[in-house]
Amino acid sequence: MNKKVSYEISPVAFIHSCFKQKFTIPRQPGLVKQAKAELVFLSEYSQEESLRGIENFSHLWIVFIFHQSIRKNKKTTVRPPRLGGKEKRGVFATRSNFRPNSIGQSVVKLENIEKRGKEYVLHLSGVDLLDGTPVVDVKPYIPYADSIPDAKADFASTPPDIKYSVEYTDQAKAQIEKDSLRLGQDLFLLIDELLRYDPRPAFYEGEVDKSIFVTEIYDRHLRWEIQSDRVLVLEFDQNI
Amino acid sequence: MNKKVSYEISPVAFIHSCFKQKFTIPRQPGLVKQAKAELVFLSEYSQEESLRGIENFSHLWIVFIFHQSIRKNKKTTVRPPRLGGKEKRGVFATRSNFRPNSIGQSVVKLENIEKRGKEYVLHLSGVDLLDGTPVVDVKPYIPYADSIPDAKADFASTPPDIKYSVEYTDQAKAQIEKDSLRLGQDLFLLIDELLRYDPRPAFYEGEVDKSIFVTEIYDRHLRWEIQSDRVLVLEFDQNI
Repeated sequence: MNKKVSYEISPVAFIHSCFKQKFTIPRQPGLVKQAKAELVFLSEYSQEESLRGIENFSHLWIVFIFHQSIRKNKKTTVRPPRLGGKEKRGVFATRSNFRPNSIGQSVVKLENIEKRGKEYVLHLSGVDLLDGTPVVDVKPYIPYADSIPDAKADFASTPPDIKYSVEYTDQAKAQIEKDSLRLGQDLFLLIDELLRYDPRPAFYEGEVDKSIFVTEIYDRHLRWEIQSDRVLVLEFDQNI
Repeated sequence: MNKKVSYEISPVAFIHSCFKQKFTIPRQPGLVKQAKAELVFLSEYSQEESLRGIENFSHLWIVFIFHQSIRKNKKTTVRPPRLGGKEKRGVFATRSNFRPNSIGQSVVKLENIEKRGKEYVLHLSGVDLLDGTPVVDVKPYIPYADSIPDAKADFASTPPDIKYSVEYTDQAKAQIEKDSLRLGQDLFLLIDELLRYDPRPAFYEGEVDKSIFVTEIYDRHLRWEIQSDRVLVLEFDQNI
């Protein structure tokens, strides 16, 4: 057993997603059903044969690289947001994006398959994947092996609580309506799902302050603030 | 987006498992509950901090390299055993071990954690992992994100059928009893689970022949044959 061995892996596809930055990205796959992405296979994998039968699976595993979280000095512990960012846990006891080998895995819904020019594209939903994510494997989800509903999972046995209702200024509402038409997606549903869990870093937990937060979604900047029991969406525009 | 990028990954741990060869290995994790393995962390990851809190999870994802299935020329299609080895499916529509980047992922049960000398060891069950498998990541199983019991999965929506009852010659029985004591594990349960699904390559499907098959388990050779509706275990010994 050679303990010094290493393996070179390279992308088979890349993700084009509505999430342009880590801030506000869902903390697990499936939490934000409206989060959509395209998985575009590189030309050498863009063949009918490689994908034959994939349409018979409702869900896929996407194995990917946390490309914006690669660090030379890996931490051994992290502070999970679900624990208020205060308690430390070992990196192998969390799903932190900062981890040895920077490999992530997310189960997503396969919406449909498109051939666009010479490239095969998978349309996915329920993603927690950044735009530009390199994908190193795609595998079908097999429920009899992968689904363990009664697994014990410490603080993460149940989904996070919905913390806020999401409301909109008239200006934001008009902008989002227009962009929903342009992008062919009801963006209110997406923004609701994104903001209701309180996507701020854990040290804000339960705090109300006057900060205005900016989240990049698609080609827009979403501006929002926390007001006691609600998130108020202020603006959705190209200008910050 | 640099499509020529590649990533170097290296093991954080290695698997010591009862499965010494690919033949007869379970086709998915969880199918053979009695299949046990040790995951031994390399010294740089053998720290209390790296594992802090892992004991609160019942199941873990093991991300690994199919180290005995690395080929330069990757196939685009495979013939899943569940389809009798006759129909072709795209590699991304199967969980074949022959795949781009040779990355596997299995959810396994965490039985307990041991500190052995300076090394941390995870005791796992329900494994489908070969002895010597390099592990590149360990992550907790999070049921609210990972468990999708009603996912549609083509031919693999339900577990494979139990095809045979498993019976033993008197000689085999005596040998297995002795080794069960030596290894501290009821090997009848393991052998039952392993052989009842018909672990022969798919082209044998439904066929009865006079071949005697040999499976390496731990330090023993298990000899068995198919007899109409049963598997007869002939011998369990060091000599083939």
